[in-house]
Amino acid sequence: MHSDTIVALATPSGSGAIAVIRLSGKAAISIASKAFRSVSGKDLRKQVTHTIHLGHVIDGNKTLDEVLVSVFKNPNSYTGEDVIEVSCHGSSYIQQEIIQLFLRLGCRMATPGEFTLRAFLNGKLDLSQAEAVADLISSDNEASHQIAMQQMRGGFSSEIAKLREELLNFASLIELELDFAEEDVEFADRTQFKELIERISFVLKRLIDSFAVGNVIKNGIPVAIVGEPNVGKSTLLNALLNEDRAIVSEIAGTTRDTIEDEISIGGIGFRFIDTAGIRDTEDVVESIGIKKTFEKIDQSQVTIYLFDAYKHIDNLETVRIEIEKIRNKYPQKPLLVLANKIDELNDIQLAAINSNIADILLLSAKTGFGVEQLTNSLLNLINTGALRNNETIVTNSRHYDALLKAFEEIQKVQHGLETGLSGDLLAIDIRQALYHFGEITGEITNDDLLGNIFANFCIGK
Amino acid sequence: MHSDTIVALATPSGSGAIAVIRLSGKAAISIASKAFRSVSGKDLRKQVTHTIHLGHVIDGNKTLDEVLVSVFKNPNSYTGEDVIEVSCHGSSYIQQEIIQLFLRLGCRMATPGEFTLRAFLNGKLDLSQAEAVADLISSDNEASHQIAMQQMRGGFSSEIAKLREELLNFASLIELELDFAEEDVEFADRTQFKELIERISFVLKRLIDSFAVGNVIKNGIPVAIVGEPNVGKSTLLNALLNEDRAIVSEIAGTTRDTIEDEISIGGIGFRFIDTAGIRDTEDVVESIGIKKTFEKIDQSQVTIYLFDAYKHIDNLETVRIEIEKIRNKYPQKPLLVLANKIDELNDIQLAAINSNIADILLLSAKTGFGVEQLTNSLLNLINTGALRNNETIVTNSRHYDALLKAFEEIQKVQHGLETGLSGDLLAIDIRQALYHFGEITGEITNDDLLGNIFANFCIGK
Repeated sequence: MHSDTIVALATPSGSGAIAVIRLSGKAAISIASKAFRSVSGKDLRKQVTHTIHLGHVIDGNKTLDEVLVSVFKNPNSYTGEDVIEVSCHGSSYIQQEIIQLFLRLGCRMATPGEFTLRAFLNGKLDLSQAEAVADLISSDNEASHQIAMQQMRGGFSSEIAKLREELLNFASLIELELDFAEEDVEFADRTQFKELIERISFVLKRLIDSFAVGNVIKNGIPVAIVGEPNVGKSTLLNALLNEDRAIVSEIAGTTRDTIEDEISIGGIGFRFIDTAGIRDTEDVVESIGIKKTFEKIDQSQVTIYLFDAYKHIDNLETVRIEIEKIRNKYPQKPLLVLANKIDELNDIQLAAINSNIADILLLSAKTGFGVEQLTNSLLNLINTGALRNNETIVTNSRHYDALLKAFEEIQKVQHGLETGLSGDLLAIDIRQALYHFGEITGEITNDDLLGNIFANFCIGK
Repeated sequence: MHSDTIVALATPSGSGAIAVIRLSGKAAISIASKAFRSVSGKDLRKQVTHTIHLGHVIDGNKTLDEVLVSVFKNPNSYTGEDVIEVSCHGSSYIQQEIIQLFLRLGCRMATPGEFTLRAFLNGKLDLSQAEAVADLISSDNEASHQIAMQQMRGGFSSEIAKLREELLNFASLIELELDFAEEDVEFADRTQFKELIERISFVLKRLIDSFAVGNVIKNGIPVAIVGEPNVGKSTLLNALLNEDRAIVSEIAGTTRDTIEDEISIGGIGFRFIDTAGIRDTEDVVESIGIKKTFEKIDQSQVTIYLFDAYKHIDNLETVRIEIEKIRNKYPQKPLLVLANKIDELNDIQLAAINSNIADILLLSAKTGFGVEQLTNSLLNLINTGALRNNETIVTNSRHYDALLKAFEEIQKVQHGLETGLSGDLLAIDIRQALYHFGEITGEITNDDLLGNIFANFCIGK
């Protein structure tokens, strides 16, 4: 598998000023040299690594493009193999023609993630770093970018590797004891070992717990804004946008009639779910009101109840009852209650709202009053402590699963130590924990696992 | 204007494996060195041209990405200035952050085409070559690509420059004569001069004529397929696609309800206009039939009349009359008549069709019979001789205008020579022709002209 040379477009498809086509493998440089005529007559095969050469891509007697060719020689390349990057003009036609030419000259089309897979197989990256590459590319806000970057630079791997090494030392000592079973010696100091297991247990628990926030950071926090039509939802979204300036994206949701606005607040992505009133005309209006509200809340992690304080100033009791309904149905889910349009109220009316409805946030989406308090409240709902302290955060569900399994084994070891379990049985549990650590960094892999991981990459990476 | 350093994303926007951000200007290298920390501790400012360096983009104490930085030193770069290319991970977030960082460090956002404008102003390209860059990027079939490539490599410029030089020599001689007006000398041999003017006139005429085919190649040839519903239009389009394998694109047409399929046949783009029956329900069916047909034909350069031979085998006369109607209304427009579904006919029926309808092409879109003949007929309709002979073809309407004006002046000169016009008046016309030649290659420009040309470029080129 490793002997062939792969090719793919590395830049996004479509038209642009330039595009980059990447080759990797034993024959990368010799294949490229067949298609490339340097302006200064240089032979690509004789160039040193990390140099750039101007010339033309030639297909027979046809000039396909004027290009820059970058040469990277193994092991000093992304994949660890010989790599050629052709920087051509960004027309789809040219991209296609050049890739076709390289295929005819003996390259094979790269599969998704194959460049990074090769980097992993050649020891340029461990598995969690390779996974971070995909996370890095898909990161669209500061927090997820920061976590992916930390993981790519080995932050996560090194934490796991350290634990694994310490555990491995003890495992060796315990296994050594087995060789001297008749003599009843203890090479592994049980007190120190207990301490280590407790420490590992503590770190694993922290990492496992970090997945909740990691997951939220990676995927954004779904927030339902419920309330009557014209209550000021889009004004509020715009006000939130102004707070942070960055629109992350507008993504079509998972259900056909759901639109999500993603807004980055304090570097965290919040996905505001808007089940646009598309089906208003089809159903009985009365029944969908509450049904839709609950549908929205079901999909979200945080609920914002937004009401028009000016309109309801004389029937706050109704509002209070509706809020109670939501609180009763979703006792575990954070609910932020916002009284909007307070710019139209006087002090007595404001006091009435405060005294009638508990934990209320006063808001004027129009003037921006209360928006900062709202963003602070939203950020307080997620534990960003770990993020602020630059701690390792788990965002990958595969890592999470492996950590859970390792934690389970470590607990068995802990229990075994307390109950004086024999060394040979302890060793089994320790080996099992080590196995799960190894799964994370890729010391233990199989083709299916690698296939699954790299299938989620884009082609060209 | 030239002293500042510009920055832009050079690759298409969106997510991909990698993206390239380009800087150009006096401070490009020093600005980049402020944001870049090389893995091996190298100082970017001390690196030689055309080398690549691995490291991190650092914003304060935050690592934005692991990148490769390419260094190009003036004059050996695209723009002729110092150029830095940062090859980063292809996330939109990272692209934005890195560009923002460079802006804070003193870069300015590049305007559309500004890199190429600088290349022109620094003498790296002449104007027609610079224009070819945009054509090259937008070329989506072999013919338009080939023409843009030829123009970018100076084919067109050198042809114009040669004529201009010869004419300039004669202009100088004639102007020299004016200094010796009293002595009645002729430095410029009038016979040779006539020959030159005839030659220039001939070349100009050829170039001007080539615009018709150039325009067609650049923009694709609009083809109307008219015929009843279910006559096999989409089967035919698919069959044509199989002939050449390359779908060029599917573009939304100029009118709201027109969809165009562009298919590349023999390297030429053909745009098949399909005015989808969107308005069928609104109008009286009878009247729109013919109205729509004519609308389609109005927009096209070639008409294909497609009819179901099996269905109409017993009323070929009706078909013949309809074809006559089209021929009468559009006597100048090429019309290809296709009898489809001939796989369902026997030999006697085929003979009947051939004898009833002149110049008919027998077709079975289903089996592919006749498709090759059709593609040959389509290609014969445009004069691809120039293309085959690798002659210079004019595709740019600005060049076309300048050539027309130059031609007009050359005709005046020719007439002047025939009528024995005095040297001083001849010189004026010659200067005028030279002026129009200069407009093409950019020896004569003004800011408005440059603004217009480069405004059509994408940002980053």
